[in-house]
Amino acid sequence: MSSAWWMQTIQAVDQTYLQTAQTRQAQLTKPPGSLGELELVAIRLCGLQKCARPKIERVHIAVFAADHGVAEEGVSAFPQAVTVEMVRNFARGGAAISVLARALGATLEVINVGTVTDMEPLPGVINCRIASGTANISHSPAMNEAQLEKALQAGAEAANRAHAQRADIFIGGEMGIANTTSASAVACALLSVAASHLAGPGTGLNEAGVKHKARVIDKALSRECISPNDSLNILRCFGGFEIAALTGAYLRCAQLALPVLVDGYIASVAALCAQRIQAGASVWFFYGHQSAEPGHQLIMEKIAQRPLLQLGMRLGEGSGAAVAVPLLRLACALHNQMATFAEASVSEAL
Amino acid sequence: MSSAWWMQTIQAVDQTYLQTAQTRQAQLTKPPGSLGELELVAIRLCGLQKCARPKIERVHIAVFAADHGVAEEGVSAFPQAVTVEMVRNFARGGAAISVLARALGATLEVINVGTVTDMEPLPGVINCRIASGTANISHSPAMNEAQLEKALQAGAEAANRAHAQRADIFIGGEMGIANTTSASAVACALLSVAASHLAGPGTGLNEAGVKHKARVIDKALSRECISPNDSLNILRCFGGFEIAALTGAYLRCAQLALPVLVDGYIASVAALCAQRIQAGASVWFFYGHQSAEPGHQLIMEKIAQRPLLQLGMRLGEGSGAAVAVPLLRLACALHNQMATFAEASVSEAL
Repeated sequence: MSSAWWMQTIQAVDQTYLQTAQTRQAQLTKPPGSLGELELVAIRLCGLQKCARPKIERVHIAVFAADHGVAEEGVSAFPQAVTVEMVRNFARGGAAISVLARALGATLEVINVGTVTDMEPLPGVINCRIASGTANISHSPAMNEAQLEKALQAGAEAANRAHAQRADIFIGGEMGIANTTSASAVACALLSVAASHLAGPGTGLNEAGVKHKARVIDKALSRECISPNDSLNILRCFGGFEIAALTGAYLRCAQLALPVLVDGYIASVAALCAQRIQAGASVWFFYGHQSAEPGHQLIMEKIAQRPLLQLGMRLGEGSGAAVAVPLLRLACALHNQMATFAEASVSEAL
Repeated sequence: MSSAWWMQTIQAVDQTYLQTAQTRQAQLTKPPGSLGELELVAIRLCGLQKCARPKIERVHIAVFAADHGVAEEGVSAFPQAVTVEMVRNFARGGAAISVLARALGATLEVINVGTVTDMEPLPGVINCRIASGTANISHSPAMNEAQLEKALQAGAEAANRAHAQRADIFIGGEMGIANTTSASAVACALLSVAASHLAGPGTGLNEAGVKHKARVIDKALSRECISPNDSLNILRCFGGFEIAALTGAYLRCAQLALPVLVDGYIASVAALCAQRIQAGASVWFFYGHQSAEPGHQLIMEKIAQRPLLQLGMRLGEGSGAAVAVPLLRLACALHNQMATFAEASVSEAL
């Protein structure tokens, strides 16, 4: 599959704009470095957007929804019916990500890549249903190759739409009962760690529930023995349609030179997949929020990233990334609008 | 001075609205607790604003500027002239806080409580100059009692203006070359710790500079021996006009039932003073940003607070608090606009 679309060239950062932005930050009326990570965000955005004055005006949020066969193992605190119920809640504007999208003036689209039941047409919901959920990973691979390709493609199409609408940043979200189980299985296989290191409470399991979840993941991992380098096969055997779609979306964004604001645990597993498929993709990824799901910290440590926010959120839907959008906007405003020492006739350091 | 205005009654949190807000958060379509600190912010705001649907629309930012006699000890990386130069930069809109205030739609006022030189009238700058800077704390008390009262009063008047303009939240900022030295001296006296625990690089001292700064602070502390409970006297002997003004502003906000978003290191020292003067004041304080100035962490630990943001900022001016405003706004939007499980016909946890 090396000639597949996802292996096409990733865009590079513009080193000249990066350098110019660094120089400008040093000239603004503040002690050097005193805006902390906001400086680094603005500088990176200049290099990514290939401009001297970056902007985060148009925000495109794509939430991928799908069901998971592994839900029948009792690995979630919520019933499987919640996936489709939440898709309706997204469409009616009552979910957290709906509220955040409105507050941010962001475009929100929901892509059904495989709920267990067929759904009525809903405004803002795109029907790309690949199957009635994935297969139960504790018994068989989650999907076949054709299904994996469809899921990756559904993600790429969302990135294409964001690009066509001239989005300045892409946020991918997910909804799918039992999807922390699938995401943990994928991460365990990619990082060669046991399930006990990555299984967490998800939407609210107790200690016994987390242990059961870890056993279910270990059973799946022991059934299929896949090299940690075979990311696509790991995604196919242990992943979910929405996790594969996020992976496809992130890779396509990196090809289209569209910066990505990665959400929490599940989205970060998809970003890790994308980065394993094409290492260069990761320069396009900002990390919005450090999830309260304990496995997220391990993943961030493995890829040496620290998300912008640590608010103890663990909701998914893209919500952690959405909450970080104002920080990117303020970073741009500061970079673009602050006076330099020379402009303001302010003395520099002694 | 126990009959002074700052000892007047602090407003209490409304327990009924607090309880109602907690109940509502449990009914919104998300796993319980999954919005993390955003839930706690919204619940607290309901109790403080005495309402079921909190809001952070009108933001009032008051930046207090003053000079410090201790600057002559060479404790800052920048020359003292920068204080007045930055006041002009605030007025012309080129400083970080000017940019942030515009981006947030906030009201910004600058109060000159004691720059070393007199200044021309500037739009948006209120002249309350108490003296040509404080006295050098390594030789004598920073101010006399009348000056301390004037500084506290200047802060109270800013809180009164914010309240009159129906602000939903108050942010106090500061500008004053050498003011991390004064703030550290105040914090050392209040917390009974040596200067080496609280002296930091400020705007950019090197290691030798930080050691010199600690010696200057220890000299001041050893000259005046004040009980850690005598907060007002500590503020008078070691503080600055802008630090005292912030203390006055915070106390007045707590009397007016106006929530406060506290900025970084210096503002937190003023908040600590306010809390020591009236313990009940602290229920009105949110902490916006964990400063990169190392002493801030110690202060936050002592008062058992964790700021909303950790972005490595260390600029002052109220900038760290300003950057946290969107989080409060999004917390309100989520609390007010999300659908409940019943409204959205979404199944609850198993």
